[in-house]
This record gives sequence, structure tokens and C-alpha cells, in this order.
Amino acid sequence: MTDPAAPPSRRRETTRAKLLDAAAQLFAEVGLDAASVEAICERAGFTRGAFYSNFASKDELFLELAGQVATARMEAVRARIAELECEGALGAQITDLAAIIPLVLDVSVADHVGVMLMSEIRINALRSPELAAAYLAQDAEMRTSVAQLITEIVESNQLVLRVEAADAARLMLTAWEGESVRATMAGLAYEEVAQRTNDVLALMIRLIIEAPRR
Amino acid sequence: MTDPAAPPSRRRETTRAKLLDAAAQLFAEVGLDAASVEAICERAGFTRGAFYSNFASKDELFLELAGQVATARMEAVRARIAELECEGALGAQITDLAAIIPLVLDVSVADHVGVMLMSEIRINALRSPELAAAYLAQDAEMRTSVAQLITEIVESNQLVLRVEAADAARLMLTAWEGESVRATMAGLAYEEVAQRTNDVLALMIRLIIEAPRR
Repeated sequence: MTDPAAPPSRRRETTRAKLLDAAAQLFAEVGLDAASVEAICERAGFTRGAFYSNFASKDELFLELAGQVATARMEAVRARIAELECEGALGAQITDLAAIIPLVLDVSVADHVGVMLMSEIRINALRSPELAAAYLAQDAEMRTSVAQLITEIVESNQLVLRVEAADAARLMLTAWEGESVRATMAGLAYEEVAQRTNDVLALMIRLIIEAPRR
Repeated sequence: MTDPAAPPSRRRETTRAKLLDAAAQLFAEVGLDAASVEAICERAGFTRGAFYSNFASKDELFLELAGQVATARMEAVRARIAELECEGALGAQITDLAAIIPLVLDVSVADHVGVMLMSEIRINALRSPELAAAYLAQDAEMRTSVAQLITEIVESNQLVLRVEAADAARLMLTAWEGESVRATMAGLAYEEVAQRTNDVLALMIRLIIEAPRR
């Protein structure tokens, strides 16, 4: 499965990555309980031995996966902030509220597997204090990043927030989450899920920002 | 387990109710997959025969339970509307925005089992088109009821909504849901979960309603 000529550390990383990928798909499809170590190994094309030389248990793999998913979402937000700063978009004067909306929406799409996996992480975190602590820590970090993005856009454009940036971030993230889950549940295609989550975020943005004075 | 002197139809109803109760607890604790028909029967104190004379399958019971949970939430909202109308609270002039908040908050508390169960219903609805259709229909009905409550309060008090009532309802429900899940995940007690969901709803109310003119 992996290149036998590759150095052991890289081969090991590839194996871990493939096991995590296969597990993410299976957890999304059938859930944590129903996805056996055997099924994960079969999907990834590895033996049980390869699994247990990388992870102490299925729960350990799940915890790492939950961390990866959260990190990927956060990186997307951070990359978006850096990109906007680079383009000077955060410094440009925005007089039309609608012009702000596309600035923050690029990070707002989760695919079907992503939505299922996040939901699976949440239900398991409701049952495991360890997973709950990890989830809530990542959630708090995500809120902080989004609050920073909101603050930068608002300050650069001399806009006025109607609530604290932290509360604005919290409301935007729960609105995004609730809408992603419902649109995915409705069996909508990726573009339609994106449209629905963008619409609900645009709605929240209009609510949290005072209309600019003309 | 049930009173042998009770008429068969009432005995049957009691059996169904006890099976549904036991299943709700088990689904919340361990999830739909891990909760076996045997375990449900053991918890309820009935035989497998009693189970299958009431439900064709575990999935059928789960679908009925999901319907009951949604109906109970909706009934609470409807009862609250009726109560407010009876008290004349909807007709009274409210000049302080803060006075509106307690009017709608009485319906906003879910206990630990309720939050787990709703999360379990959502993750399973993401995997089953039949359950998804039932969930989304109930969700739409819930939004309509909440939108009606918002409209009545707003009109009676000559307040101005900053978004459509339907959108306001959607945002309030997802904020409520996201906050309930996080507060429950954090292991907070019932009163603290209630406080957190009330706070986030109060925040949303301030956002969706224009401050009354003095």
C-alpha cells in the first residue's frame, strides 16, 4: 500500500493518514460504534497490526480525527484573515454592508462527510467527558478566531457591532452549524448546502452590524 | 408490570409508553445502534413479544419517539402562546425590550436526556432519508410556531423586526440548539443549561428587534 522505498517515518505518516481518512469516511457513514477496527483497516488496506502500531484504540484515533477536523476549519479561517490582510481588503472602506458578506463567506462550506463527522463528534462528546473537553477547547478557539476576523473587518471599516465580537462569533458559528446539518439532511448537493449556509451567515451579518451611516 | 384489571386498550397504551420511555433513556445513553431491543425490553420490564406486538422494529419505535419529542416541544410553544394570550400579555404595551425576553423564554429548556436524544435523532436523520423527512417536517412546523409567537409579540407591542419572522425563528432555534448541546457537553447542571440557553436567546431577541422608540 505504501512505497516500500520511502523512509520509515514518511511511510508511517502515510499509514496514519490513510487510516484516519478511512476512519473519517466510516464514522460519517455508520457512526463511531458501528465502525469496527477491522472495517477501518479493510477500507484503508492495512492489517490490524498496522492499526495498533499507530493508535492505542479506536477512541484515540477518533479523538485525533476530531482534532484534525477542528484544526482544518480553524486554519481555513486564519488563512482567510491572512489573505484579506494581504489584499488590503480589511483596510479598504466598505460603505455597502453587502460588500462585507463575501469577505467572510469563503470559509463557510462543509461537505457531506464533514457535516456527518462533526455531528458524530458532537454526539460522542455528549457521552465522553474527555472528548467533550477536547471539543469544547477547539470550539472556544474557533470562536476566538472568528471573533478576531469580525473585529478586524469591523474596525477597518469603521462599522459598529451591535453585540460583543465574541457573541457575534458564537451566534454565527451555531447558525452555520444548524444550517449545514439541515441542508445536508435534506440531501442537498454541495453547492446548495453552500448557498444555504451563506444565506444564513449573510442574515446574521446584517443583524450583528449597524447599517453604515451614509 | 401493568395492571391486569385495566382494559386491554389502556394496558396496551401503558406498555407502549413504558417501552418508549425506556428506549428514550437508552438511546440518549448509548445511541440508537448500541441500544438493542433486548436492552429496551429489560429496562422497561417487558418481553420481546410485548415489544414486537407494539412496534415492527427498533427503527419504527425511534421514528415515533422522534415525533413525540418534536410534538412535545411544539406543544410547549403553543401552550405558551395560549397562556400569554389568556393573560393579555401579548396585548400589553411593552416599552422596555428586556421585558419581552422572559415572555418567550419559558419554553427554552431541555434536560440532559432531551439534548442527547435530539442529537441522536439528528445524527440518525443524517443517515436515513425517511427519518430526515420526518425530522425536517417537524423542524419546519416548529419554526412556523415560533415565527407565529414572534409575530404576535411584535405586533401587539408595535415593535419592528429587523428580519422576516421566519428567519428570526430559524436563527433563534439554531442558537438555542447549539447552546443547549454545548452547555450539556460541558456537564452543566439543568439550571445552568437553562441560564445559558436563556442568555443566548435574549441576545438573539435584542438583535432581531429594533429598540422601541422612546
